[in-house]
Amino acid sequence: MGRGVITIEELGEFGLIAAITERMAAASPGESDWADEGRVILGAGDDAAVIEAPDRRVVATADMLIEGRHFRRSWSSAADIGHKAAARNLADVAAMGAVPTALLVCFAGPATLEVDWVLELAEGIATECAAVGAQVAGGDTSNADAVLLAITAFGDLARRAPVTRSGARPGDVVAIAGTLGAAAAGLDLLRADSELDAGGALGGLVKAHRRPSPPYAAGWQAAQLGATSMIDVSDGLIADLGHVAAASAVRCELDSARLGAEPIAQVAALRQAAARLSGAEGGPEWLQWVLTGGDDHALVATFPPDVELPSTWTVVGTVAKGHGIAVDGQIWSGAGGWEHFRTQLLPVND
Amino acid sequence: MGRGVITIEELGEFGLIAAITERMAAASPGESDWADEGRVILGAGDDAAVIEAPDRRVVATADMLIEGRHFRRSWSSAADIGHKAAARNLADVAAMGAVPTALLVCFAGPATLEVDWVLELAEGIATECAAVGAQVAGGDTSNADAVLLAITAFGDLARRAPVTRSGARPGDVVAIAGTLGAAAAGLDLLRADSELDAGGALGGLVKAHRRPSPPYAAGWQAAQLGATSMIDVSDGLIADLGHVAAASAVRCELDSARLGAEPIAQVAALRQAAARLSGAEGGPEWLQWVLTGGDDHALVATFPPDVELPSTWTVVGTVAKGHGIAVDGQIWSGAGGWEHFRTQLLPVND
Repeated sequence: MGRGVITIEELGEFGLIAAITERMAAASPGESDWADEGRVILGAGDDAAVIEAPDRRVVATADMLIEGRHFRRSWSSAADIGHKAAARNLADVAAMGAVPTALLVCFAGPATLEVDWVLELAEGIATECAAVGAQVAGGDTSNADAVLLAITAFGDLARRAPVTRSGARPGDVVAIAGTLGAAAAGLDLLRADSELDAGGALGGLVKAHRRPSPPYAAGWQAAQLGATSMIDVSDGLIADLGHVAAASAVRCELDSARLGAEPIAQVAALRQAAARLSGAEGGPEWLQWVLTGGDDHALVATFPPDVELPSTWTVVGTVAKGHGIAVDGQIWSGAGGWEHFRTQLLPVND
Repeated sequence: MGRGVITIEELGEFGLIAAITERMAAASPGESDWADEGRVILGAGDDAAVIEAPDRRVVATADMLIEGRHFRRSWSSAADIGHKAAARNLADVAAMGAVPTALLVCFAGPATLEVDWVLELAEGIATECAAVGAQVAGGDTSNADAVLLAITAFGDLARRAPVTRSGARPGDVVAIAGTLGAAAAGLDLLRADSELDAGGALGGLVKAHRRPSPPYAAGWQAAQLGATSMIDVSDGLIADLGHVAAASAVRCELDSARLGAEPIAQVAALRQAAARLSGAEGGPEWLQWVLTGGDDHALVATFPPDVELPSTWTVVGTVAKGHGIAVDGQIWSGAGGWEHFRTQLLPVND
């Protein structure tokens, strides 16, 4: 074969699987800061994989990414989509306080898709895994009209209890690891101008959308520190911390000044993005992105007030009796998103 | 709400998840012949599930089912699709010699889909799981134009080594648990007449396509008996046993007379199906279905010759030096499917 474009159809299913396996192995050097050795006892090539579960429990989470809904091939490279697909599942594992160990990857795509595109996707997935010491343990390929990815991620709790959504107690502090708002602002910039090729601050926001950097290690750090609850911010802080408040039967009270400080929010960049999108100087929209933007995959956790938090974690509020989420003393009523929030600010009286 | 048709869009994502969770819980009584208690430590409702892995390892397998490619809503009920989707993953776990413990289910479908259809699907999945003592531990829902399912199944090896594809040795016997050919014949009957509402033998074949009954318990039984290799027949006996032959660097020699005997092949039913499809008395096509038809999810395993096999397992051949698959002394050349087989029968000389 020459160096022309080769499609999935030309390579065939078994050829594709062999090529994916080879590319993923090259991208997973089998060493990392988190694991001394591989966690996959038996990998691709059998009916099922066998994965280590050192403490007799395995953390597992799965989700599906669908072209046109969760990503667009014209807006992100194959490698970016791979990194992001792995990241959202690995972040879910980290949000339980677990160290990711392995991934299973189901891929479906059109027969006319270029093999190189699939291999870059596979490499992106494997590279994101390798950064936390996890490995791709196997998967499945199918034909489909659009690109579909279904990823299952596995993790090890290292004998700790899982950090769930339901343990927040009045008096706890609310803290964030990672960034908020950048990915959502980047997505809005691409929606307005899909050809956007910005450097500088705006480029950083677009990059945050294309390839988020979840603070994985902060997840198991939080568990070690005694976090009472934790969640990965994938649908926006208000929505996801709202799940914690509901599951814990508490109110979470946030301070926008703390949310707007580095390292959580890049307010200057967000203001610049708002200005570009509105054509005028940015107003308060930066806070919209920080409160409701998902996909940065920050972690939000609650800790007992006496826990001394390392710099990874920034306190942004407190847990109180009641329910729902309050921002600067105003209850977020829960439905309708940002516009609703702006027009329906209610006093804290329930 | 009245008793009219309710769509996913009307119920909303959280309502749908709550309804699915409720339906699945009702279908999983939490007791079975295989497990005294649930294997799911933490189920749906958090970023990830926590599943028991009693021997510090977990068997895991995932695949994707796509409407129009793996199933048709007009040919199978939602419950049938659910049973089948769970069965193909549970059979992969059993083929490793492991007892299934849990499933994660990612579901995507159009917003206009009836909620009742989704709930019947969920019930089918949960009921198939409950039959082997496994539980649905969580999942994910998305929007998509067609129905998509991605299922991950988990299993426990109970301190045994996994039974892989690579351990078959010359001198071993080849044995089958379950049925072969019925699902493929049923699918061909539906392809010819999608309105087919046959009872009797033909109805049994259609049912085998819609809702296969993998011999799950034979999987861990084989591991206990010392099986040297095992695989789930999902793509056809020739293809799947071919994976065993390749991974083990051996030849597997099959005897069609033994394959054609009860309980493996329902030859009378297959002949009746062939006659209906050809309009004449059925010829040897029954063997085509038995050798190349997938989706019954039989298990094929190799055992040392001195192992006394229970009636679950029927010996159908032997393992020899060489490579590939031979049927009645003729090598199956590997490519091109049944027509190729019929016209290209080669003497055993390599």
